[in-house]
Amino acid sequence: MTDMRIGVLGAGGKVGSSVCRAILEEPGYELVAAVDPKLAGIDLGQMLGRNAAGLIARRDVEALISEAPEVVIDFTEARASFHNLLKLAQAQIPAVVGTTGFTDDEMRRLGEAFEGVGCVIASNFSIGAILMMRCAAMCAPFFESVEIVEAHHDQKVDAPSGTSLETAMRITDARRVANQPGFLQDRTSNLKVEGARGGVVDGDVRIHSLRLRGAVAHHEVIFGTASQTLTIRHDSHDRSSFVPGVLLAVDRVTGLDRLVVGIDGFLGQD
Amino acid sequence: MTDMRIGVLGAGGKVGSSVCRAILEEPGYELVAAVDPKLAGIDLGQMLGRNAAGLIARRDVEALISEAPEVVIDFTEARASFHNLLKLAQAQIPAVVGTTGFTDDEMRRLGEAFEGVGCVIASNFSIGAILMMRCAAMCAPFFESVEIVEAHHDQKVDAPSGTSLETAMRITDARRVANQPGFLQDRTSNLKVEGARGGVVDGDVRIHSLRLRGAVAHHEVIFGTASQTLTIRHDSHDRSSFVPGVLLAVDRVTGLDRLVVGIDGFLGQD
Amino acid sequence: MTDMRIGVLGAGGKVGSSVCRAILEEPGYELVAAVDPKLAGIDLGQMLGRNAAGLIARRDVEALISEAPEVVIDFTEARASFHNLLKLAQAQIPAVVGTTGFTDDEMRRLGEAFEGVGCVIASNFSIGAILMMRCAAMCAPFFESVEIVEAHHDQKVDAPSGTSLETAMRITDARRVANQPGFLQDRTSNLKVEGARGGVVDGDVRIHSLRLRGAVAHHEVIFGTASQTLTIRHDSHDRSSFVPGVLLAVDRVTGLDRLVVGIDGFLGQD
Amino acid sequence: MTDMRIGVLGAGGKVGSSVCRAILEEPGYELVAAVDPKLAGIDLGQMLGRNAAGLIARRDVEALISEAPEVVIDFTEARASFHNLLKLAQAQIPAVVGTTGFTDDEMRRLGEAFEGVGCVIASNFSIGAILMMRCAAMCAPFFESVEIVEAHHDQKVDAPSGTSLETAMRITDARRVANQPGFLQDRTSNLKVEGARGGVVDGDVRIHSLRLRGAVAHHEVIFGTASQTLTIRHDSHDRSSFVPGVLLAVDRVTGLDRLVVGIDGFLGQD
Repeated sequence: MTDMRIGVLGAGGKVGSSVCRAILEEPGYELVAAVDPKLAGIDLGQMLGRNAAGLIARRDVEALISEAPEVVIDFTEARASFHNLLKLAQAQIPAVVGTTGFTDDEMRRLGEAFEGVGCVIASNFSIGAILMMRCAAMCAPFFESVEIVEAHHDQKVDAPSGTSLETAMRITDARRVANQPGFLQDRTSNLKVEGARGGVVDGDVRIHSLRLRGAVAHHEVIFGTASQTLTIRHDSHDRSSFVPGVLLAVDRVTGLDRLVVGIDGFLGQD
Repeated sequence: MTDMRIGVLGAGGKVGSSVCRAILEEPGYELVAAVDPKLAGIDLGQMLGRNAAGLIARRDVEALISEAPEVVIDFTEARASFHNLLKLAQAQIPAVVGTTGFTDDEMRRLGEAFEGVGCVIASNFSIGAILMMRCAAMCAPFFESVEIVEAHHDQKVDAPSGTSLETAMRITDARRVANQPGFLQDRTSNLKVEGARGGVVDGDVRIHSLRLRGAVAHHEVIFGTASQTLTIRHDSHDRSSFVPGVLLAVDRVTGLDRLVVGIDGFLGQD
Repeated sequence: MTDMRIGVLGAGGKVGSSVCRAILEEPGYELVAAVDPKLAGIDLGQMLGRNAAGLIARRDVEALISEAPEVVIDFTEARASFHNLLKLAQAQIPAVVGTTGFTDDEMRRLGEAFEGVGCVIASNFSIGAILMMRCAAMCAPFFESVEIVEAHHDQKVDAPSGTSLETAMRITDARRVANQPGFLQDRTSNLKVEGARGGVVDGDVRIHSLRLRGAVAHHEVIFGTASQTLTIRHDSHDRSSFVPGVLLAVDRVTGLDRLVVGIDGFLGQD
Repeated sequence: MTDMRIGVLGAGGKVGSSVCRAILEEPGYELVAAVDPKLAGIDLGQMLGRNAAGLIARRDVEALISEAPEVVIDFTEARASFHNLLKLAQAQIPAVVGTTGFTDDEMRRLGEAFEGVGCVIASNFSIGAILMMRCAAMCAPFFESVEIVEAHHDQKVDAPSGTSLETAMRITDARRVANQPGFLQDRTSNLKVEGARGGVVDGDVRIHSLRLRGAVAHHEVIFGTASQTLTIRHDSHDRSSFVPGVLLAVDRVTGLDRLVVGIDGFLGQD
């Protein structure tokens, strides 16, 4: 079996360069074209610590298309991305897109453009985080209590994390679908320190946000019922944890014939 | 809504008395008859620290049937249980059965007897353990590594635990069904202490059994892929952790019209 | 070596009966007298599931002294306890006391009474919790971040737990003694849910209190510095977790010649 | 207060370049000279993504001494390091040394050379790992059971980890010093899978080594006694976790007047 020919848009960016590195390292893939207008003509090899034919940064998507990639990965920004994706669709090249911020109208037009061609647009490529949410949703109807704890590095300025908020939402949705009542109400009548019981979202799920130097990104959902607890925990040990999800999408996108939003569908039945 | 009328067979046993205690404590249930031939006529209240009409131990299943329970719970032993269950089926009373050790022939005959009447026979009523296995099976196809760690009290004489062995089996089954290859092979070339890498089951899943005074029953499945790990952990904090599963089965058995093995089906799609 | 002869005051109480059970189970100890005025003359054996000479409840401390115990354990209430302890001191019998609520004057008078006789009065006999605090104090000067997470059963009405508050205090004390500045300030500028960052105590330690059905009593201190975290976690799996601390105090009290407050001194240098 | 002037030997190496990066990032330090004979004259800034005067790689220790650093950090190899350290001692410049492999004779001669000048030579600069061991040693006498679990990335070829072996040794030492008997003997009589109970070291401590893609370096010591467990856990989230320990040694070495082995002494009383 020959390696799958991959092109990368936004190859010089923070995420794009991680993607390039992963493509170069993983067996089964070949990096045939890397696009970054600002770095056009420059060898990206030094930045990535690698040598590879595809590492001379190309100016635009046309240069990339001329290399006939089987799949193109795009982590850029919505304005540039939208036009590039239309050109890929026209050239019948499947795309995996981590760019966010498309308008509803752009999404509709991308949907039309990719009729007959695979395309995956997702805001979250962390396989582990998605599976954590899915497990949490599956378990939610069978417990009386739940608490979410998330820990991130001390530079994070928002709390709770987006993933913890989405997890809370999925948990309450799952209970509603299963016709289960809300979780046990908090019985704290003597709150000695304001905030100790965490932040309440979606009615009755509490989130506790820890900020610690040395932490990276960690999420924990703890369910409780009589005499037992069930804990689902995701630990990201560095910021390239989106890579396995991108590669999963690359593997699946060639079998699609339309635009799909999110990679959840590749992680088992929804 | 009136309380559901419950009868318990084997009420004086270790598990049976926990079941009685739970029925007495949980709102929505009424204990109407407790059977234990060896304790016939004795008030079980002192043992359970409770007063309740149903607590005078009855001699046999006929005495129990005469109280018209809506569901009967049976944690006894296979020989007695088989005959009792046939009588319950005849009386059209649904049963939840934790007794194990039925022969294939007995199971077949129970299946026939309960045509039209609900019956649940299960060897594992721990909701959390079953959901842990289900989550593990769901996640198994998406990771390259897995390790199982289980910890039990220091009196446990077998290792690994039955639950950890069953979890390993479900993980490898799930991978096979998803057409995924085995997990990454162990690269340890310098094993400095025999046994440090745990026990290998089902080809490539490793189990590590901890035995600690003060532990109860704890299981952890850790999956890994690039830059991230996903951990699913179940903690039983005491030996009555089967109670929520029994109550779930009691709630569901009245809607059944046949014999069902295991409570997995009540915990979401399989 | 013969078994140590133990007397128990308050043997019919919740804690007292656990202490009796432990004395009966642990090798090296003999229960020679159990006092409970309300149950005087009654055989406690049924309550404890045991047979033992000392299990007939005695009326008062004099009856207990007449059995010549080597150590007496007292978990009752301050009014009764104070007078009983004076009598034990007079009889030169060492005491281990979990009773709380003595006035300053009573403590002073007990101190005088136990000159020459060992006595240990402590409000916390959980060895693990005390060692957790001690480890936390030792580590506190070497990290830039700390967060405390505690989880308890859903019936607990106060938050945060007393142990977590005491742990926070010891952490900030240890930093002060080591001339270390406070921990890193929280950088959260976008708090999306009130309370998500927990409750702040002692200036800069945050505590997160979880309440879950099925949990018992769990405390976790997480320290962070560049690229690493250190976690110290204590899990109580049932309410008899004070027993090892009581037995430790029993073993040590015979070597004392005065009143000591707290069992910290038995757990290594302070 | 002016920044402390730091020199780095082996600045182009894997560890050395992490040290340079940390010196450039941390307030309070100035990188005044970086030595790497193979890269002499080359600007290390590109490699480190930084600009700084000290980033032109110097040829030898003399060039470094001429910049009058207040402390020199050395992560090279024993042969070169030995001679460089003698020159630093002669120039009265304190040194922090991560180089390993000195002979006994070299250590003795370094001890003589650094009479009157501070020098720290250590094989382990991970503050968290050292504190974990220290906590474990402190707790060891008070529990009846212990198990060690360590998890590393799937490329690690040796098992158990050096840190887990050292931790086991410290635990058994601490028990011996406290005149405590060994831990509870394993009661497993039905070992269903060879190796499941881990590897036994130092008589009765069991180590369980997990190897997982996505893990970095994690160690956990779990102690147990009646009704409770105490867990001490260290997580390294990336390979630069030695940096806080190096900076701690830099801060302390100027106050020393001799050679010290290990940084344990800076982490509280031993």
